[in-house]
Amino acid sequence: MNAIDVIIAKRDRARLTDEQIDWVVDAYTRGVVADEQMAALAMAILLNGMDAGEIARWTQAMIDSGDVLAFGDVGRPLVDKHSTGGVGDKITLPLAPLVAACGAAVPQLSGRGLGHTGGTLDKLESIPGWRASLSEEEIAAQLADVGAVICATTPTLAPADRKLYALRDVTGTVESIPLIASSIMSKKIAEGTDGLVLDVKFGSGAFMKTPERARELAEAMVAIGTAHGLATTALLTDMSVPLGRAVGNALEVAESVEVLRGGGPADVVELTVALAREMLVLAGITDVDPAQVLASGKAYEVWERMIAAQGGDPGAPLPVAAHVEELVAERSGVLTRLDAYAIGVASWRLGAGRARKEDAVQAAAGVRLLVDVGDEVEAGHPLLELHTDTPDAVPGARAALNGGVLVSDEPMSRPTLLLDAVRG
Amino acid sequence: MNAIDVIIAKRDRARLTDEQIDWVVDAYTRGVVADEQMAALAMAILLNGMDAGEIARWTQAMIDSGDVLAFGDVGRPLVDKHSTGGVGDKITLPLAPLVAACGAAVPQLSGRGLGHTGGTLDKLESIPGWRASLSEEEIAAQLADVGAVICATTPTLAPADRKLYALRDVTGTVESIPLIASSIMSKKIAEGTDGLVLDVKFGSGAFMKTPERARELAEAMVAIGTAHGLATTALLTDMSVPLGRAVGNALEVAESVEVLRGGGPADVVELTVALAREMLVLAGITDVDPAQVLASGKAYEVWERMIAAQGGDPGAPLPVAAHVEELVAERSGVLTRLDAYAIGVASWRLGAGRARKEDAVQAAAGVRLLVDVGDEVEAGHPLLELHTDTPDAVPGARAALNGGVLVSDEPMSRPTLLLDAVRG
Repeated sequence: MNAIDVIIAKRDRARLTDEQIDWVVDAYTRGVVADEQMAALAMAILLNGMDAGEIARWTQAMIDSGDVLAFGDVGRPLVDKHSTGGVGDKITLPLAPLVAACGAAVPQLSGRGLGHTGGTLDKLESIPGWRASLSEEEIAAQLADVGAVICATTPTLAPADRKLYALRDVTGTVESIPLIASSIMSKKIAEGTDGLVLDVKFGSGAFMKTPERARELAEAMVAIGTAHGLATTALLTDMSVPLGRAVGNALEVAESVEVLRGGGPADVVELTVALAREMLVLAGITDVDPAQVLASGKAYEVWERMIAAQGGDPGAPLPVAAHVEELVAERSGVLTRLDAYAIGVASWRLGAGRARKEDAVQAAAGVRLLVDVGDEVEAGHPLLELHTDTPDAVPGARAALNGGVLVSDEPMSRPTLLLDAVRG
Repeated sequence: MNAIDVIIAKRDRARLTDEQIDWVVDAYTRGVVADEQMAALAMAILLNGMDAGEIARWTQAMIDSGDVLAFGDVGRPLVDKHSTGGVGDKITLPLAPLVAACGAAVPQLSGRGLGHTGGTLDKLESIPGWRASLSEEEIAAQLADVGAVICATTPTLAPADRKLYALRDVTGTVESIPLIASSIMSKKIAEGTDGLVLDVKFGSGAFMKTPERARELAEAMVAIGTAHGLATTALLTDMSVPLGRAVGNALEVAESVEVLRGGGPADVVELTVALAREMLVLAGITDVDPAQVLASGKAYEVWERMIAAQGGDPGAPLPVAAHVEELVAERSGVLTRLDAYAIGVASWRLGAGRARKEDAVQAAAGVRLLVDVGDEVEAGHPLLELHTDTPDAVPGARAALNGGVLVSDEPMSRPTLLLDAVRG
């Protein structure tokens, strides 16, 4: 077996054999297949595709490159959720304690943000004392005790994926549905859950710009889950406008706490409950209404225990930005455009996100939305707040918003949040 | 400008701009664009193509990565030839002195063999004392004095191409007509000739397996030549059977000397004269018949001077293999198959070629054909000789010939050698 033959097979539109896939993923992880060879193969896969059988095998080979977590019996069914990423997407924060409050266990291994989308761990680290890294034993104990864990993924899960993702990032080969689907699913399957709900987003702030591409990705991931015996459901959800009113780390934690206390923006509540319902179906829990549990305050109690279990103080004040200024409406009319990507980039530039993996993020930076799409506004009325510790960043953030926030005479309403579900 | 944007443009089937091409070729040469990025781009080019304008610009960028030779006035028109490579293709050896004997100057900068096709320099190095490396001044002086030089290419010509070729070799991205055409033409244009004749081969022993692919490559190269103001003609020639009766370094030198002395196999003479005619047309020399000059012995005189000028002894005996054995016909009938690729691989395994760039070659190893396609043979009659200094290599060579040399009852004749010409 050699790398050139595998590359040429895919280049010439052949189906890769199980042996070729197993070998090339393993050899790449061990450094026997060089980066330039895997880059050429990734481009050939991006342009010529892989079928469902190839994708399932590729996923298995990436799982086999590392460890698979096994939490043992935690006394409850395990169910996990993954979002493909969006702007203001803090849903994991209220969702994990909500589903735990309904009787399932949620092992939510998460990542950090890169680019215009935020990272769950960055958000939680704005809570004083909270720590992201837990051992496998600590995760299992917290699942049995609290029922919900949000923590950093371990470096021994799917190392092939970590190496391949870094390569794809610099070689223009990120946007391949077989490679995206196998990347996500290899990590999620290695995390040892019994059920998985995927939030696959579409729109300007999402990785997939159209519903069609999002559906294609959702179907590929559900097919992988099914092939691996993992109960998997995907929701297709809108990401053309930000989720909720808060974008940025501490700002999103505060909004999540509002939701857990029975308040918060309607769209955040709607999506949290919808995802919880799907997770509970996969966990076999059909006699509990997550909307009622959320309203009851029981989810907030789990949140407090979950944060405290990882060293955080759920009652401590969150960091506040040193500098806040407003963006005001230049004319009167209706807010017709509140572009998720533009607001995501603005928040990132204000300091909420990182340009390179080694960068630090500002806990308090971000954007607070003061009006919603479809609202009538008057000239001079504030539309949103820019929060940052580094006022130098404001002009760049304002430039990012240029054209992304628009007041006009057109009537407008929020796009439908939940488009469809794809079930295994 | 950054590499990922250039890769994504070609990945998404855009035309690369002049600025993108100039930047990426230069940045790759300087190491700013990484190997894995260029590998992904090369695969995208292979699968999505480049148009004639992109290919011409890419070629120019590779030329601009290094020096361009300028021999000054050598008193004769400069004309060069390039073959895409074949088995038994020793044509450069009689051709360069023949064209010089007709009044043109031939600066033939050549390479070494890799894989089943031989290299011109490897062949000439079987002549005692001959040296391949000359300075630019030595080349110019020999062109003015003898009229013909066959020597190693200099490392300062098109370094982008050298680096890119080595990368393509290990990433399954060799078989791209835009990349092959620009690779060949960047070196040839940098060598500073006034006219260029291309021998584009097709068939099992050639790089292009079909006449259609060979024509596509020929047209791409002639278009590049035209775009750069270089008079260029391509001949499309058969390489399904070996050229002549000798395959291997010293064996091919001996056959070339036979041709220069007015003898030798008819196909070698035919192709040598056909290429000479095209070169003389480009050099503006229309009153000399190269067939007559070859028969007259004047080309052989130039050969002797050319070899001697580079330290070689044209009268010295050539190396002889320590071990020679025959392959005999297993049945009586007609020789219907004499597959160029099979014989090329056999010769390579006998020691005439190298598997890796750093390997040495055996001067005396190779294959001598004793019968021709269409000849009647009797069972037990010798078909060809295997020459080697390492008898251990014989079983591998015989295995390569299995199925490639066939005696049957079908009548058969040699394929037509010259298919067509493509002119600028």
